[in-house]
Amino acid sequence: MKKQYLLAPGPTPVPPEVLLAMSRPIIHHRSPDFIPVIQDVRKDLKWLFQTEQEVITVAGSGTAGMEASISNFMSPGDKILAVNGGKFGERWAKIATAFGVTTIEIKVNWGESVNVSEIKAHLDKDPSIRGVYVQASETSTGVAHDVKSIAEITKTRENTILVVDAITALGVTNLPMDLWGIDILITGSQKALMLPPGLACIGVSEKAWKHQSQAKCSRFYLDLKREKDNLLKDTNAWTPAVTLWIGLATSLKMMREEGLENVFARHSKLARATREGVKGFGLEVFAKNAPSDAVTAVLAPEGFDGEALYKNLRKQYGITAAGGQDQLKGKVFRLSHMGYSDTFDIITAISGVEMALYRMGYKHPLGSGVAKAQAVLIED
Amino acid sequence: MKKQYLLAPGPTPVPPEVLLAMSRPIIHHRSPDFIPVIQDVRKDLKWLFQTEQEVITVAGSGTAGMEASISNFMSPGDKILAVNGGKFGERWAKIATAFGVTTIEIKVNWGESVNVSEIKAHLDKDPSIRGVYVQASETSTGVAHDVKSIAEITKTRENTILVVDAITALGVTNLPMDLWGIDILITGSQKALMLPPGLACIGVSEKAWKHQSQAKCSRFYLDLKREKDNLLKDTNAWTPAVTLWIGLATSLKMMREEGLENVFARHSKLARATREGVKGFGLEVFAKNAPSDAVTAVLAPEGFDGEALYKNLRKQYGITAAGGQDQLKGKVFRLSHMGYSDTFDIITAISGVEMALYRMGYKHPLGSGVAKAQAVLIED
Repeated sequence: MKKQYLLAPGPTPVPPEVLLAMSRPIIHHRSPDFIPVIQDVRKDLKWLFQTEQEVITVAGSGTAGMEASISNFMSPGDKILAVNGGKFGERWAKIATAFGVTTIEIKVNWGESVNVSEIKAHLDKDPSIRGVYVQASETSTGVAHDVKSIAEITKTRENTILVVDAITALGVTNLPMDLWGIDILITGSQKALMLPPGLACIGVSEKAWKHQSQAKCSRFYLDLKREKDNLLKDTNAWTPAVTLWIGLATSLKMMREEGLENVFARHSKLARATREGVKGFGLEVFAKNAPSDAVTAVLAPEGFDGEALYKNLRKQYGITAAGGQDQLKGKVFRLSHMGYSDTFDIITAISGVEMALYRMGYKHPLGSGVAKAQAVLIED
Repeated sequence: MKKQYLLAPGPTPVPPEVLLAMSRPIIHHRSPDFIPVIQDVRKDLKWLFQTEQEVITVAGSGTAGMEASISNFMSPGDKILAVNGGKFGERWAKIATAFGVTTIEIKVNWGESVNVSEIKAHLDKDPSIRGVYVQASETSTGVAHDVKSIAEITKTRENTILVVDAITALGVTNLPMDLWGIDILITGSQKALMLPPGLACIGVSEKAWKHQSQAKCSRFYLDLKREKDNLLKDTNAWTPAVTLWIGLATSLKMMREEGLENVFARHSKLARATREGVKGFGLEVFAKNAPSDAVTAVLAPEGFDGEALYKNLRKQYGITAAGGQDQLKGKVFRLSHMGYSDTFDIITAISGVEMALYRMGYKHPLGSGVAKAQAVLIED
């Protein structure tokens, strides 16, 4: 017997209430049975995205949402400005290239957040830039970019939309779409929404819809206008992932019951506890100055392999955390505190890391990290 | 208390075994836990598609699969030949147009199957046609097209691939991909695979891979080569819809236990029983000569509204069948016998239709349809 603990940044654990809702006999998406599900999801996603606009939900991974944010709003030959400070930041240019869109990249050292004045300088120099693409939380490095300040720059420029990949940020941290002036806000089901993977949700501003009507990149399955027109009639363009929608309606209800401010406060506290916990055990958080509240990347101590730690956590303690990706492979390990995560998930994470590293020969006093995490977790 | 019966052509009922498998705590798709799932799905999809090639599974609806079959294998300016004999046949040209591909349409009267010699004539006249696109089973009309004969025409033409939308045909009727020479074979999870919607599976022949390497249409999320390269390493390009994959591994196992020949024979018998049943009640099958074994479209009797019947079946008997789409709205109703469907689902369907129509004033002797269905169902 070994209990399993999922502490990776997506998929995140799915609450039993959601699993139960999704395991009921399936219903038909064109029958009246599904209309209340669509209505609840429409209403509650607007609440979560803090927008008056429709939020479009498609069957697909987060990457489908990222692709839609380019193919729906750009034409071949258009130019975008993309912040590339990690594995997901890299993806913008790859998608843009596939659609004939030119990318100007702002390369940011992994572990750092973008210098917002660089974005302003680019837009001032070249007003033909049609979009700024950035991660709110770069999952590979555990860094948050300053979306609010970026939005202040793009908000007044009619020619330029701001596209925010909030796949590991929405429902974690405050990203008021309408208030800040975010044009496209993207999330995926398997993160703070506490669902299995398979849905991408995309909020689209009025300004962005104007861009959409002129954008000529090829799109069909991910045509957001077609989905919006159907949503307004409480239906979907294509067959929706019915069970995931039912799960979404359920998890959104749970989030509403907790309240948005409380959801953000919980994530903030769990993230701080995680950071203090690993530091208390003598480790270093990889994010230099702007750590994400969704996931903490931790540098493996000198001479210790982050991949081996990942494997030992699984083998010895049934904990599935995450290793490092690409250039960070072996150098960091990552702990998620996003979604269905609470006090004792953090205690489990920190104590698990302590025990596994200790057994690997890293002789820091056991419990020193846990104590620091507790000091945060007992705060009101 | 009213029991619910889902008799629509997708989503179809999900077996309890599959619901249970999908409601287990979620696992991480990059952890070793998921590798056996990928390996089982790879192996069993090859078995189901009757191919030696990899079958690619993406998070998306069937339409995502249809889009992938154009965007991966065509370049802007290319020409395809599309069979349009219903709502799904119509979709080929819409997708092609979105990707800058030209469509020559063979329009087929709804209710009829394509005259295969017309396809040959087009290809003989214009060898620059890069693909023939056809439904194996046109869900809107309940008609099957003769894929085997079409494949005989395309098989020897290196320049032309055959793309078969088998979304409501695969796992219903025999479509041996390699043997017949089908180049692209597409299905969706919510049909004969007995799963919730959210996955599209796409088999790709060696010949089609050659086309893929030269095809220039924009694609990223649905890039099948990227998925194939990952599958060969037992992983996925993008985060897969984990629970649906687990469901897929489970339902494929159920199909293997039944055996492919038995699966086909069961569908054939249930379809025949449905057709004989409705005819026994004085109704007419909409398909003129080539009825699909997945779904039967039935003409509403003169003076009776198919939509009203659909509503009455739901209200009075908890049966969700399907109405007609577009030009068939009100004129037909549709009964599915696909996937997790057995003897008494057909008895339910036929007796439900009898009772609802009788109450609407259609005074055919009650039980006359059921008796005809039974006569088929008691066959060995």
